[in-house]
Amino acid sequence: MKKPSDHYKPFDKLLIANRGEIAIRIGRAAAELGIHTVGIYTHEDRQSLHRYKMDEAYQIGADDEPLKPYLDIEGIIQIAKLTGAGAIHPGYGFLSENPNLARRCYQEGIVFVGPLPETLEILGDKVKAKQVGRKANVPLIPESEVPLTDVKTALSEAERIGYPVMLKAASGGGGRGMRKCPDAKTLEEVFQSARNEAGKAFGDDTVFLEKFIINPKHIEVQILGDSHGQVVHLFERDCSVQRRFQKVVEFAPAESISESIKNRLYDYALVIARSVGYINAGTVEFLVDAKDNVYFIEVNPRIQVEHTVTEEVTKIDLVPFTDFNCTGQSDVRLIGCAIQCRVTTEDPENDFKPDFGTISHYRNASGFSIRLDEGSSYPGMRISPYFDSLLVKVTASGTGFNRCLRAPQPRSAGIQNQRRQNEYRFSA
Amino acid sequence: MKKPSDHYKPFDKLLIANRGEIAIRIGRAAAELGIHTVGIYTHEDRQSLHRYKMDEAYQIGADDEPLKPYLDIEGIIQIAKLTGAGAIHPGYGFLSENPNLARRCYQEGIVFVGPLPETLEILGDKVKAKQVGRKANVPLIPESEVPLTDVKTALSEAERIGYPVMLKAASGGGGRGMRKCPDAKTLEEVFQSARNEAGKAFGDDTVFLEKFIINPKHIEVQILGDSHGQVVHLFERDCSVQRRFQKVVEFAPAESISESIKNRLYDYALVIARSVGYINAGTVEFLVDAKDNVYFIEVNPRIQVEHTVTEEVTKIDLVPFTDFNCTGQSDVRLIGCAIQCRVTTEDPENDFKPDFGTISHYRNASGFSIRLDEGSSYPGMRISPYFDSLLVKVTASGTGFNRCLRAPQPRSAGIQNQRRQNEYRFSA
Repeated sequence: MKKPSDHYKPFDKLLIANRGEIAIRIGRAAAELGIHTVGIYTHEDRQSLHRYKMDEAYQIGADDEPLKPYLDIEGIIQIAKLTGAGAIHPGYGFLSENPNLARRCYQEGIVFVGPLPETLEILGDKVKAKQVGRKANVPLIPESEVPLTDVKTALSEAERIGYPVMLKAASGGGGRGMRKCPDAKTLEEVFQSARNEAGKAFGDDTVFLEKFIINPKHIEVQILGDSHGQVVHLFERDCSVQRRFQKVVEFAPAESISESIKNRLYDYALVIARSVGYINAGTVEFLVDAKDNVYFIEVNPRIQVEHTVTEEVTKIDLVPFTDFNCTGQSDVRLIGCAIQCRVTTEDPENDFKPDFGTISHYRNASGFSIRLDEGSSYPGMRISPYFDSLLVKVTASGTGFNRCLRAPQPRSAGIQNQRRQNEYRFSA
Repeated sequence: MKKPSDHYKPFDKLLIANRGEIAIRIGRAAAELGIHTVGIYTHEDRQSLHRYKMDEAYQIGADDEPLKPYLDIEGIIQIAKLTGAGAIHPGYGFLSENPNLARRCYQEGIVFVGPLPETLEILGDKVKAKQVGRKANVPLIPESEVPLTDVKTALSEAERIGYPVMLKAASGGGGRGMRKCPDAKTLEEVFQSARNEAGKAFGDDTVFLEKFIINPKHIEVQILGDSHGQVVHLFERDCSVQRRFQKVVEFAPAESISESIKNRLYDYALVIARSVGYINAGTVEFLVDAKDNVYFIEVNPRIQVEHTVTEEVTKIDLVPFTDFNCTGQSDVRLIGCAIQCRVTTEDPENDFKPDFGTISHYRNASGFSIRLDEGSSYPGMRISPYFDSLLVKVTASGTGFNRCLRAPQPRSAGIQNQRRQNEYRFSA
């Protein structure tokens, strides 16, 4: 096993194994430190801005492979070696939670900007991750206790836990492979399709059942670990506003839970992170129900889409390449509040289905306390059906929530050539 | 005289007597507080974004008056009365330093968001403002002591002060009416043109002479006063990077001067501000020469272009409509550093002369610690020769200057359809 103290070593060139806004975000962090950036893109992504924001960028995969090359560990390792990149940052999604990329990096003497492969192995598997929580005496959601490979076992386990139950993929997140089952009939109907979806999305069709918690708050604690065993928390985010199990709006601090509950969540998060030797940025996720029951869900061992919220309330850069930022809990202070909204290319008049075409107009938000994290949001960009529908993240920060919420609102008169902030328009 | 304690009274509708990015900035501050905004625009500005960002907006002046209506006090008062606006914010430039607008507001029972008319009267006149400094025992630049209405008097005063000297307009700033005179011959040549320029720009052709300080740092202290006589400073900005007497790059804190000099400047700024009962946001400007000699120059009794720098390092909103933000010096803390760059529509290949045409492409900067203050920077916008060449302000903040300076840099490969951040392109 790689010793944690060897985790970071100096490098002057970074391969960013991702696309879109997070690749640009990571490239910015590197540029600030004078680190040369190497980007990768598929043929489908040849117009994407992340390609042009890097110091150098290379197409990966054949022209008819829009998505798969981003999951090609050996292809990415090869580009790192050919370009002399001393480190790889996986971003979120794709290979970010895959211990094999981390392991291959170590074998090749490349810094993997993220946790140790062993940590990823444990946390990337929801079942193993819950064992970590159990050992640390952190409350868990009641769940299935045997592998669910057939619907019969699933039904008997659901009976034991009590309906409503939730069917979930063991190896992934983001709502894929997830099904709510109010009764046995539903569970029977959706079991196989959930397994298929999980297998397709994560290469692993293992599923499990959980007690469904009614109307919980989804609260997550941001953590940051260094390679010497020190872990700090950076407070919480409330990510309860979701659509189809996907976060839509995230904010910090959480307004609806008490300080004592928050402190319990921070303590749980630190205990869990320390127990797995957590390095770099990660998130420990919890549900909090109306009776203040707390349930540990999972650890996301990577940077998250909503990390901007925490950056704005702590002013701490969550894309660290060394132990530099992790100087101790007393250095982490909460300043005001922040809220992030995701601007997606979804069609509200068509059940929020992803919409495709070429962006013909784009107008960005701007001003005091507004932060933008943009992907390829420029006129002429062709929105691809193969990728996530996230176009821009707008993060507003301020001294109070009322100001945050009002900050990015467009104020405009009803005049013909009016354009709203962050509006995008597709041409056919 | 209006009592300061009557200065602010509640209002729910604000007329913004300005254009471009600062009108949008002020509109944002109002929107955050739920205050309805009224905009004004001339026919020449009918495409400008500030028009569309307001809740309601009205054309002022005739179609062939591009600029003058923004200086029309009675026209603006009339729109405030017709729309029921309870307050007027003058922004910077235009009528912001004109005591007559402030006075007319008071006569009409409208809140003037800025200092008292009496304060504007003193500070808006450089000669009177220096008397304030003199009374407060703040060091001044040696200057002419009699009115300069003819070149003969100017020459004899210059002789007394010693060359090089600087010729300046009494009633304005921004480099207009300003001439450097290394010798008597130059002074003789430029005297009349400087007076003409001053008259044209500020409606007052009074000029005066100052000792020219060689290679000084231009340091300004941000102040914020409430209507009960309390004034705080919000640290300094270094605005030494100028082109044609116009600031181009501004940053905080000033790196090149010592803490003891800074503390002297803060004290001077507070003494001056208190002595004139300063209300709202203002700036006290100083020169600091290589031998740490400090000279008070003037007070800018209004919000400034570069206020964003101070907002980023203090997180205090510099567009207040009440005494709310001014809670005492101990609440003002310096957090990291920030630098603002002005993106202008000037042509570096043509001696930085303002360039005109229609914007065909625009790509904005974005990301962690990047703040944008944008005017009408959208494709299709026609850049007018009548207005300032400022298009966008990019403010980068961070824990250290190296990170700030690197933050907004475009990182891109040399590929055909590459676009640089904040690039704009004109079509013919």
